[in-house]
Amino acid sequence: MKVYLAGPDVFLPDPLARSQALKAICAAQGLEGVFPLDPLAVAEPAAWSALPAWQRISLRNEAHIRGCDLLIANLTPFRGPSADAGTVFELGFMRALGRPVFGWSNVAAPFTERTRRFLGDKAAVATDGVWHDAAGMALESFGCGDNLMIDGAIHASGGDLVAHDVAAARLWSDLAAFAQCVEHAARRLSETAA
Amino acid sequence: MKVYLAGPDVFLPDPLARSQALKAICAAQGLEGVFPLDPLAVAEPAAWSALPAWQRISLRNEAHIRGCDLLIANLTPFRGPSADAGTVFELGFMRALGRPVFGWSNVAAPFTERTRRFLGDKAAVATDGVWHDAAGMALESFGCGDNLMIDGAIHASGGDLVAHDVAAARLWSDLAAFAQCVEHAARRLSETAA
Repeated sequence: MKVYLAGPDVFLPDPLARSQALKAICAAQGLEGVFPLDPLAVAEPAAWSALPAWQRISLRNEAHIRGCDLLIANLTPFRGPSADAGTVFELGFMRALGRPVFGWSNVAAPFTERTRRFLGDKAAVATDGVWHDAAGMALESFGCGDNLMIDGAIHASGGDLVAHDVAAARLWSDLAAFAQCVEHAARRLSETAA
Repeated sequence: MKVYLAGPDVFLPDPLARSQALKAICAAQGLEGVFPLDPLAVAEPAAWSALPAWQRISLRNEAHIRGCDLLIANLTPFRGPSADAGTVFELGFMRALGRPVFGWSNVAAPFTERTRRFLGDKAAVATDGVWHDAAGMALESFGCGDNLMIDGAIHASGGDLVAHDVAAARLWSDLAAFAQCVEHAARRLSETAA
């Protein structure tokens, strides 16, 4: 079974080392990890070679996702209170295909708390008890790990969201939550197959 | 034809007024806007009434998207350099269904520039000429409007991304870019139908 490894991990200084580390954890559970930077299993359409890099990468990742049985997303907050935008896009993409989506994060604080921290003194409680930002826009307050579309998709697809805190220096290197997520995914797939 | 109106507009102080404004612009082009807070066109499954609000909202929005012919996303940067996470999820969801996705934004600066501004003095150019953050993670530098999965999906689906600058006070009220996006979408749908 193939697992698409969504995440901002592609932006790490050594993305190929990260790819190998993630794949080794998948392999230990009998799963084949597919990293966004992998070549496609089949030859790319010839027409793609004329496209600019961003279009080719986008089409390749979409093809990767379609070729996988489930998706595991690194939802560690990325340059703001939410997960990386590309990762969230891919999670929504796989959810629409009706396959299980899982998430992991190296930050345990829930979404509302992270957003309040991000906004600092620009966040305020209105008379209705709801937190707002300086533009008067409400903060989601459902106790979710990120925007409710993300938590909702993970839950409804039978996936899991594994979030825990790690030392700040290990924010982008600690793979314990990922490993736990892979275990859950392997169990989920074996239950579906049974 | 039905258009799903994705965006952080649901967080505005008066989301129903916004819903009406967006729908009026759609109606002027012969399109029916569907706002995330709308009730479903069909009765919700009885089992949903027992679910917590975040699950019910998530399932309802997924059903709304499945019921629409295309999606127009408010991609104005939201609490960070990227668009709202729920919006990006929904754009990925609709893209996987193979239907056109459009985006609009009230900020013209491209993604790389916004990310550099967001990171401030934590962004630096490495010897390879690529911008990195303090964790050594690269900044996307493809000249895109947001993460390349978003731009790639819009482009590949035949959609359009309309971005322009507005006065700061009108960041969440100016609908000129939206109106232009709706015009493009109406033209796209009439071409497909022809």
